[in-house]
Formats: sequence, C-alpha cells, structure tokens
Amino acid sequence: MQKIKMLLALLSLALLSGTTTFVAAETPVSLTKSERADGRFANTRAVVQSLMESREPALSFNPNFSPEEFVAWRQRVREEMRALANHPIVADMPAPKMVAEEQRDGYRLQKWECFPLPACVSPFLVLVPDGVSAENPAPVVLCIPGSGQPKEDVVREASGNSRGGMAFQFVRAGFVAVAVDNPCIGEASDLERFSKIDRDYDYEDSSRFLLELGWSYQGYASFIDKIILDNIKARADVRSDRVVVCGFSLGTETLMILGAFDDSIFAFIYNDFLCRTRERALVMSTPGADGRRHFPNSIRHLTPGFLTQFDFPDLVAALAPRPVICTEGGMDRDFDLVRKAYALAGAPDAAVCLHQPKYADAKNRVYLEKMPYDIDRDTFFRYANVDPANHYFKGEIAIPWVKKLIETADAKSHDAAK
Amino acid sequence: MQKIKMLLALLSLALLSGTTTFVAAETPVSLTKSERADGRFANTRAVVQSLMESREPALSFNPNFSPEEFVAWRQRVREEMRALANHPIVADMPAPKMVAEEQRDGYRLQKWECFPLPACVSPFLVLVPDGVSAENPAPVVLCIPGSGQPKEDVVREASGNSRGGMAFQFVRAGFVAVAVDNPCIGEASDLERFSKIDRDYDYEDSSRFLLELGWSYQGYASFIDKIILDNIKARADVRSDRVVVCGFSLGTETLMILGAFDDSIFAFIYNDFLCRTRERALVMSTPGADGRRHFPNSIRHLTPGFLTQFDFPDLVAALAPRPVICTEGGMDRDFDLVRKAYALAGAPDAAVCLHQPKYADAKNRVYLEKMPYDIDRDTFFRYANVDPANHYFKGEIAIPWVKKLIETADAKSHDAAK
Repeated sequence: MQKIKMLLALLSLALLSGTTTFVAAETPVSLTKSERADGRFANTRAVVQSLMESREPALSFNPNFSPEEFVAWRQRVREEMRALANHPIVADMPAPKMVAEEQRDGYRLQKWECFPLPACVSPFLVLVPDGVSAENPAPVVLCIPGSGQPKEDVVREASGNSRGGMAFQFVRAGFVAVAVDNPCIGEASDLERFSKIDRDYDYEDSSRFLLELGWSYQGYASFIDKIILDNIKARADVRSDRVVVCGFSLGTETLMILGAFDDSIFAFIYNDFLCRTRERALVMSTPGADGRRHFPNSIRHLTPGFLTQFDFPDLVAALAPRPVICTEGGMDRDFDLVRKAYALAGAPDAAVCLHQPKYADAKNRVYLEKMPYDIDRDTFFRYANVDPANHYFKGEIAIPWVKKLIETADAKSHDAAK
Repeated sequence: MQKIKMLLALLSLALLSGTTTFVAAETPVSLTKSERADGRFANTRAVVQSLMESREPALSFNPNFSPEEFVAWRQRVREEMRALANHPIVADMPAPKMVAEEQRDGYRLQKWECFPLPACVSPFLVLVPDGVSAENPAPVVLCIPGSGQPKEDVVREASGNSRGGMAFQFVRAGFVAVAVDNPCIGEASDLERFSKIDRDYDYEDSSRFLLELGWSYQGYASFIDKIILDNIKARADVRSDRVVVCGFSLGTETLMILGAFDDSIFAFIYNDFLCRTRERALVMSTPGADGRRHFPNSIRHLTPGFLTQFDFPDLVAALAPRPVICTEGGMDRDFDLVRKAYALAGAPDAAVCLHQPKYADAKNRVYLEKMPYDIDRDTFFRYANVDPANHYFKGEIAIPWVKKLIETADAKSHDAAK
C-alpha cells in the first residue's frame, strides 16, 4: 500500500508538472545499468544498446576452429558479405574505355571510364610504367582512397612528399597502378565540385538514397570497384596472378568486400587501424559537446545487418591465406585473431600486423580483451593503440612488403616450372 | 584527333591544378539532365536519383485494379509491410501491468508498463471515463503522438486549449484513451530527460543502432505499439470491435504499419498531410543554406527497402475498407487513389479526405500529377497543399466523425440482431 501511494505521488508529480515532467538526475545516464529492480530500461537508447549486446555476430571468427571448420566458416562469411553488398546484375553493360592518355616521367597516365549502371559513368586513372606491355606485363594494384581524397590526389607527383600519392608510389615501384574515386568524392561528387566546400564532401544524401533502395554506400562502392578490378585484371599488360588491392582509410572497407568477391586477389594492403565497429559503437557513448551521444561514424558506413554477421577483424581473417598487411595498428587481441586465421589456413607468415611507430614497443600498448563502457573517441583511440596523427598511406612499408611477396612467389613458380 | 587533344588538355589541366582540379560551373548542378552526350552522370547523387527513379515501387496501388485484384494486392502490401517491420518473436514476454491509478475529473488515469523486449519497459497511460467498466465497455483509441510529444502531453488537461491533448479529448468524448511514447521521446528518451535539451529529442543514435541490427525506428515503434494495442483490446472495459488508431504526425507512420498487422482495427485517424515520400525525396533537391542537398527527413523514417515496395498513399489505400479520415490535406491526386481503393473495397464513403481550411476551397489548391524537380521545402508544401502552420490534432473534426461511425455501426448491429 505504501508502495502504491508512493507511485501515485510520483505519477501525480509527473503529471502535474506538465511539460517538465522528468525528474532531474545528478548521476550520469547509464546505458548498461538500470535503475530498476527488474533491470529494464525505458530509455530507447539503452534498449538498443542491450539489443546490440545480445546479438553476437552470427559469423564471428572462432580461434578454436579446426582447419576444416575454418574453411567452411570462410565460405559462409564470403557468401554473407556478397549478399550484404547486394551487387546488381546489369544487362548490357558497356566495356570500360580509355578516353585520354599522356606521357609522364617514367609512366603513361591513362584516363578510363566504366559504365556500371545505366545512368552512371565512373572515371578511373591507370598509371602504366614505361616498358610495361602485353609482352612484359606487370603486377597491378587497385588503389582505393580514403575520405576526401579524389583519385587525382592518389596519382599526384609528390615533390619530396612521401605521404599520400598511393598510386604514384606504386607506378614508381613498377606496378600498373589504378586509382578510383569513392562514391561522392571528386568527379563523383555533387555540388562540391562547383563550390567552395571543396573536399568536405557530402556522403549523407546519396547514402540515404542507397539505403532507401535497400542498398548501401559500401555496396555501391564495391560494385563499381569490382567492375574496375575485373577490367584491369583482363588487361594484356598486367599479370592477373599478381593483383594487389590497397585500401586507405575508408577504402579498407571496400577492400574487405572485394576480398569476399574475388578469390584471385594476390595480396591486400589494409592501411588503417583495425578495430571492431560493433564494440566501438557500444562503448563510445560519451555525449559530445552538443549533449548528445553519437554513433561513431556516418551512414556511409551503414550496411543494415552487417554487424549482426561479423565485424572487421572477421573479414580480415576471412582473407586468409592470401597475404595481408595491416599497417596502422590496432588491438593485439584482434591481430591475434587474424594471425590465428592465417595459421589455420596454412599461411602463418602471410599476415603482417604492424603497430604504429608510437606503439611499436609492446610496453607502450594497451592490452584489453574488452573495451570499457562510456568512453570518448580519444580514449577509444588510446585503448585501441590508434595514432590518428600518423594516419597516411605507408608506402615505405607496404610497397617493399608486396614486392618481396611477388619476388618470392615468382621464384617459387619458376622453381616449380623447372 | 582533335577530340583526343582536347581531352588530354582538360586532363592535364585537371591534374596540374592539384587539389583544385574541378572545373568551375556557372550553371546549377542538375540531377536529371546530364551534360554528356551519352546521358550518364559521374555525380553519385545524380546516379542514385536515377536509380530511385527507375525503381518504381513494386506494390504501387493501381486504380485500374478489379475488386479481386485489389484484394490480392492489399494482402501482398500487408505481408510486405509486416516483413519490413520485422517484429521479433519474444519468448516469455511478461503481461503488461498497471503501476498506478488515480481519479481525475470525469475519468481515471492509469499508468501501465509493458515489457516488449528482455531489457525494455515501455510505460503507457490509459484514461478510463467514469462509468466505463466490464459491464459497460467503451470504444478505445490508441493515440500515437508526433515528434517531440511525450505521452504526458497527450493526456493533459488543456485549459481552453483545444489543440493537442489527443487522449484527453477522447476520454472526454467517452472513449478509453491510451497514450504511448514513441521511441526516444519522453520516458523513452536518453539524456534529454536530464538535460536542458528538453523536447529536442535525439532519434538518430538509437535509429542508427536499430538500422545496424537490420531493424528500424518505425519497426521498433510499431512493435511496441502492437503489444500495447493487443493489451488494450483484451481489456474487459473496452469494446474490441471498436478499436480506433489515431496517429498524429510521426505517429501516422506507425498507424499505417499497425493497419497492416491488425485487421480488427475499426477505424483510423490519419492526422497529417498525405504525400509520397519517394517523390518528395526526388524533387526536394534544392541545396540548403549549408550548400548541400538534404534528404527530406531523418533516419528515424528510414526503413531500408520500403520505398521500393510502396509509398504512404498506397498504405492508406490498403487500409480499405476500414474507415479512415485524413485531416490535414495533401494532393488531390493521392486522395483520389485512396478514394478509388475504398470504392474497390465496397466502402466508398469510408474514406474521408479533408483539406486544410486554407485549401478547402478547390480553387486555392494546386493540382499536379507529378511534382516538378529541384524545388525546396516551402514550394513542395505549397504544391502539396500543406499548411504547416495549421498542423495540430484536429479533434474537433476527427472525434465527431468517429463517434458517428460507431453510432452507425452500432445501429446496424442492433438492427441485424433483431
């Protein structure tokens, strides 16, 4: 009876106070600890937190897999990723064509166009080292840039600047280097091409349309890049057995999707930190300056249902046994999973997981099996051994690594042919 | 050759100019007219525009349906809407329970809790007119508020204010009136309950989690409201054959979903303007003050794939033959579709489509079969006969309408029973 009276009193108070019905709290709002005896939340944000918590990804990599289980798991991951990417079947797609070519110092610069969808032209650039031809084909690398980076950046002739210029660095190293625009960037941008907004590209509006259509930004991006990949693999002047995919930042997501589509890719350069997006969303709940919580990234990263299936380390693990280098660190926990997958696939040395120089010394790293809740972005980055100030294409590491791989593979083929 | 030279010159220019590669344009960027001879776009936003254009909703209402085709179509719409809403099956869900009750002038105010998901409690309010009991049951109305409206608003004792107070107006009219919180609002809100943000609720963060999980804000909202609807239908003091669903603004979306789930609903009050969201997204492409285009609404309205199946007028049409009143106008084109559907369902008088007073006189309305492109929100509203300044719960129209419906239906039942 006392309890009912108290409830009534509270209800009256709430109702009487009209528009300011809510009780002020001194304590921060917890998303993981209910104030109720039954442990439930009225707070929708806390409910969706628990929904996400309770929904372990169906296809998480299990380090206790047998080699056979690993192979079956990898197949399921690839099939699911392909389903999520939802690439359309386009009838009568015209073949890509070259629209311009000119000589540069040591290589030819070609501009190509492909026609992935009836209303779409997607230009891309191909850099061909001098001396490379059908008679003397070269390895090829697909360079997928990061946010705000048009393909023109990626092919630039950097004057003493070793940062960026991903495709330029590769052509200098003897690769046929291909640079694409991510959707909404550069020539694929909308009003930004004609305004002072410049590189502050808008991904939201197009991503929203794609989501409404049951597609996604990454599904769209990987669809276009898959067409370009198929086209460059078929070039007479490239070695289709030496196709490298190199993703920087945003481009690493497309890289992982392409890895699920194309088993013929020779090696992957994953140039970003490696983390679990699902965990990141669950723990990075500190409100921003506007007093609100924010999902850690924008809807161009949203593929509905993705996080119910796997997370980024699982997708990298599913690349095994094809060589991969992760160049910008992450959690040892996740690197251990990747290494374990490669060991299960019989290629323990094919995964190279590098920390940022700042965290190269093991004693400078944070070791966690699980991130704590209610942290902000800076704390997350520190706990994940991320060095955001040192985020750039690490050609000085990746290019020698992949050249060495190719030399080794070529030597093996040569030996086998003898 | 001349053409190649020109292309090369343009490419050189683009490449040489480095970070400012893009050609300045005097003309606005068109999403529908390509500057290329082949009609294609490099602009991702224009490509997704064309994708949406080319993807006519699979289940659009066809006014040329035969009555049989109409019935089959309606079934497919309902099934598809249920699939999109994606309600989970929750084992061992506790029954809702009353946690407080107190007497008000002419009615009792009850506070209830339901437990839709393991971590979730969803409070709702029930107003029971004096004299209503198991022996003397009353019609019941589920009141689904608009954005920024906590359920406490909907039950308020307005002093001379006829606007708002949806549930309060209904209990005064003899209905058992039920008021719910939409997700992220009021008691379902997160930090807003404890901050000065007050009614400027954040829907984004929770909506994003739901989308990541392959769910949606509207799927979640309709799941909770369906549980509450089932509960109130089972009350001894209500007439389960006289269940009314009344949605205001944001609440109209939930109303349409509930209509696809529950065939026993007696009548619907659709208290917003009626429009086609797909068309709105396609035509409202004028950039905002920030120089960007914006999808006309936030991701709490995003149900991936929805617009590939139908649009709002189709869902209202699929409510037929159950009575519906649309109280805040729209395009005659869309109202005509709704009326045609009701005629096909044998209930031509059961759909009441009212224009706003400002546009009640037919000569003040705009008549369009198709909206023009590149318009801003104000223009869209004008062309759609929307009067945003007059957006409120129109109890003075809706309540007499539904009371009359009930009287007529009761009289018919009475005659039939004789």
